[in-house]
This record gives sequence, structure tokens and C-alpha cells, in this order.
Amino acid sequence: METAYTIHKHHHHIGWDNANVPVLTLAPGATVEIETVDSSGGQLSPSSTVADIAALDFGKVNPVTGPIYIDGAQPGDALKITLDAFKPSGWGWTANIPGFGLLADQFEDPALHIWSYDVATLAPALFGNFGRVPLKPFAGTVGIAPAEPGNHSIVPPRRVGGNMDIRDLSAGSVLYLPVEVDGALFSLGDTHAAQGDGEVCGTAIESPMDVCLTLDLIKNADLPFPRFTTPGPVSRHLDEKGYEVTTGVGPDLMTGARNAVSGMIDLLTATHKMSPVEAYMLCSVCGDLRISEIVDQPNWIVSFYVPRIVFV
Amino acid sequence: METAYTIHKHHHHIGWDNANVPVLTLAPGATVEIETVDSSGGQLSPSSTVADIAALDFGKVNPVTGPIYIDGAQPGDALKITLDAFKPSGWGWTANIPGFGLLADQFEDPALHIWSYDVATLAPALFGNFGRVPLKPFAGTVGIAPAEPGNHSIVPPRRVGGNMDIRDLSAGSVLYLPVEVDGALFSLGDTHAAQGDGEVCGTAIESPMDVCLTLDLIKNADLPFPRFTTPGPVSRHLDEKGYEVTTGVGPDLMTGARNAVSGMIDLLTATHKMSPVEAYMLCSVCGDLRISEIVDQPNWIVSFYVPRIVFV
Repeated sequence: METAYTIHKHHHHIGWDNANVPVLTLAPGATVEIETVDSSGGQLSPSSTVADIAALDFGKVNPVTGPIYIDGAQPGDALKITLDAFKPSGWGWTANIPGFGLLADQFEDPALHIWSYDVATLAPALFGNFGRVPLKPFAGTVGIAPAEPGNHSIVPPRRVGGNMDIRDLSAGSVLYLPVEVDGALFSLGDTHAAQGDGEVCGTAIESPMDVCLTLDLIKNADLPFPRFTTPGPVSRHLDEKGYEVTTGVGPDLMTGARNAVSGMIDLLTATHKMSPVEAYMLCSVCGDLRISEIVDQPNWIVSFYVPRIVFV
Repeated sequence: METAYTIHKHHHHIGWDNANVPVLTLAPGATVEIETVDSSGGQLSPSSTVADIAALDFGKVNPVTGPIYIDGAQPGDALKITLDAFKPSGWGWTANIPGFGLLADQFEDPALHIWSYDVATLAPALFGNFGRVPLKPFAGTVGIAPAEPGNHSIVPPRRVGGNMDIRDLSAGSVLYLPVEVDGALFSLGDTHAAQGDGEVCGTAIESPMDVCLTLDLIKNADLPFPRFTTPGPVSRHLDEKGYEVTTGVGPDLMTGARNAVSGMIDLLTATHKMSPVEAYMLCSVCGDLRISEIVDQPNWIVSFYVPRIVFV
């Protein structure tokens, strides 16, 4: 895709701050290509080992490229982001980072898997002898500056977006974010080659790539939270052979999610000869957390769906 | 499908009690056809009106047909239930029942929609002038008796299954439930013609149907919670045209789910000329609650996906 502008990856920032100086000002409707640094901030590479996980400097993680000032954007508007195309790099990493992830209390040791994939075909990526993971590149962090002054951690997503890690923010999807400051101050990073709903171990297939997108404005949209539209099916690359599904049943959704994922790790280690942490990382890149039932008081059901197509 | 046994729908019970007398004893591997009463317990019919919702006797709701004693089933085993086929009745109902549902505080008045559908084609069912809802029959309540003595409410699902309302417990799926009492004491009911993940208004397309299934045992399975396997894709009847998605962002998954569904109701009423309660009921029969991100502390994202194919 031809874009009118390119922002190079050295124009990145850590955290959200509405005092950040824009690297570019665009009129609504403009297209731009954004280069990204991977979510380790360049601390990991295709030759990294698990020792590099233990040594990570968290002050450098999850850089985003930007910000872009959109002419005319004002609080109350929605910024409309059309994700036109992704240009993946062909390598990625998935890690268990101590202290981070849905089952951090059960997985205390660092782990790392380095992925290699074909950028032309995007054929499923090999995970040892255990799995073949279908790929669908997307941007984990897509956001604009919050109204509240100061520098805010990049880690949690917010009303204005940010580190949302929504795996369907892939090519063709259209995202709407509620603008809180003049110019919106748009940034993007944390690109992923694949991830399941939940990103349960805390990381996806973290993979640097360039992203082409179109930025536009919906005046006075008065949006409460981010919303998006997908142009077509979201899981047909995964669902051909159905799913293995585990559940958690009880009065707390977080506990239900933890039980469902723990149950899947037990199932995978029992049936597919992988270690628990390997199962945990595989779950993170392809398994989906769904709320099956949220009305049959006082017990809800969270289900964890792993596509059977990943098993070799 | 030819089944060896049939259980007629008058053999139903309300609530779970391991002292219930079995209506049939089967050897593992046997097939059976089970007739069901709709989840109103026969209080609603194709000619019902909203006045009948206000008059519902909750002591009669959600009857299940059974129980079936499975020879040799013991605590620690898993009961393996293969859902072979569904024989739908062609009618159904969806209601907003005051005091019940994810947004019960916002929808205080009763509402009712009566559905009619073609049992031969299972073509999408019409919802006024607003929607065409693709159908996939499944059993909302599939369970066995809990170890704890006494009669337990049928409403909440439990470790032993019950009112799980998992929309992928449809034809071909294989469900495993942890046995807690000798003979397992299997019952089934609450059949639905369609439902989204979450069943957000509290009811699906509630529709009586007969269910053919095979019951088998996995000895000493030591299962923590229900799990199941689907034989193929679970949402291809819905996903052709993609999804409209709203989100809730914050530190509590329940609040996130409520915000995501509220956001969708606002979007549907603004763009598709339906009333809020109509949007709420439509969301319940076809919209899916997913946990997009559960690791980016302290904020999680719950997303609500409505398939665009439903809009006429």
C-alpha cells in the first residue's frame, strides 16, 4: 500500500503523556506507515535466550511510535483508525515473564520461545514438536493521549485505548477511540503475529512489523469506550478442526478464567507431551477466553477454547 | 438417529438431588433420546404474551428430563456425553424477565419475543424487522447429581454441570462431566435454538426439542470442571460478514462485561431503529462476550461481538 507519510521507529515513546511533542501532524483522512519496535523495546532478538528474559529492563518495554497530531480532533470526537495493512518481520518471541500473566503465581520461572515465520505466506509457525500456530498479525497497542496530565504507564489499557491486546485489531478492522485531548495524539506499537483472546501468559507472538493505516475523525461521537468493526470472520484461520475447551465454574470471573486455563494446561501436558510452561505459552498465542454464561446466578462460566488445528 | 431408549418429557424434575429416583438405568455406551419441556416448564407457548412473563411461576422453571443411572459410574469418573442430534420443535421464546440478566438494573420491565423457525432448513429466524438470527440448537442444561445431599437450585451451573448455557454444546460436541455420585444421575433440558456467549439478557431462543445422545464412562478421569470438544468450527454460521464489537475497559471483568453490552445496546438503538430492550434480547441470542485481555494490570478488556450477518 502507498501511504502519504512514514514514521520511523526511532520516534517512539514509553508511556502516555499529552505533553509529548507530535512527530507529525496530519489532516483527517490521511494514510501513514508506522514502523514499530518489538514490545521488549529492542532488548530481545532472534538470538536471545531465556537469560535475556531475567535481565529485561522494564523501563524500556512496550514503546509506541508517535504521537501523530490529527488536525481538528477535539475532546468528544472519535478517532477512526482503519488498519490497512501489516508488514511483518518474520521473527517473534513469546515469554513467560516472572510476575506477569494470568497464572503468575504458578509459573515463577522465566521461559522464552523464539519464533520464525514466512512473511510471504504467513504459514503456521512451528512451536517445537508440539504445535503449528496459524498467524494473523495485529497491533497490540493502539491508543491516544489521555486527558489527565503526566506520564501514565503504557501497560494498562484505558478508555482511550493503548495496550488493548485485542487480537482482532488486524488488517481491515476499523477502530474507534474516544478523543480526550486536542489533536488526539495517536501512537501505535506492540505488534503481534498471533495471540488468543486473553493473552493468558502475558505475551503473544511479539513481532516487530510496519503498519499502514488511515486516520479519520468522527466529530462529537461521544464514545464511552473503544469499539471496532471487523470486515469478515475473525477465526477461520483457526477453527477448521474445532476446539478443545475447558471451563471454570463459580461466582468470580477471574477465578473462572484461571481455572479454565489451568485445566487446559493440565489437559495439554497430559495429552501432548509438552511441559506446563510450554502449554501455557501455546495457550497464550492461540487459546481464547470466552464468557459462556454470565446470568445464572450466582455462578458464571468462563471457557477456554484451544483450536485443535495447532496440534501436529 | 436410532436410539435404544427414549425418555418422555413428563419424566422431569426441578433442581438437582442425588436422592431422585432414576427413570432409566443404562450401560456405558448406550444411546438414548430425551424429550424436553421448554425452560418455562410449559408455562409459555407460541401464543403467549408479555403478560405471561409477569405471571411466571419460578418454582416450575427449567425442568430437566431424567435422571438416568449409568451402570458402574463412580465418584472420580467422568461421564462422557456425545450430543448426537437435536430435533427442534420450530418455536421458541426470548424474554426479559425482571430481576434476571446482566443488565437487570437497567431493564426492569418484562418483554417477550416469540420465534418461529423452519425445523427442516433451520434457516435464520426473523426478529421483527431488525434481524435474522442464524440457528444452532444446543442443550442449555446438561448435568449430573452433586454429592451434597438435598435439593439444589437448577439455576446456577456447578462443577457437575447443570445450567451451563454453553452455546457450543450442540450436535457433535462431546462433553465430559466429573461424576460425584454412584450412577452419575444424568439429566438434560433447557434446549435452545440459538444463543450468544454470555446469554446476556438471561434467556436464549428457548425452544423445546428432543435430544439424541450417547452416554459413556471414563474411569478415574479426575476432572476438575466440565470440559468439551467440538468436532469443527463453532461460529461459521454467524461470522460471514464480520462483527460489530464494543468493549469495557477496567479492573473488574463483570463491570467490563456490563459496559461492553451497554455500549452495544446504545450502538444498535442508534443505528438499527430498535428499542433498547429489543437490542438487549437480540444481543442475548447472537452476541458473544470475550475476554480480549486479562494480563495488562490493572485493567482488563471484555469485548462484546455481534455478528453483522444478523442485520437485515
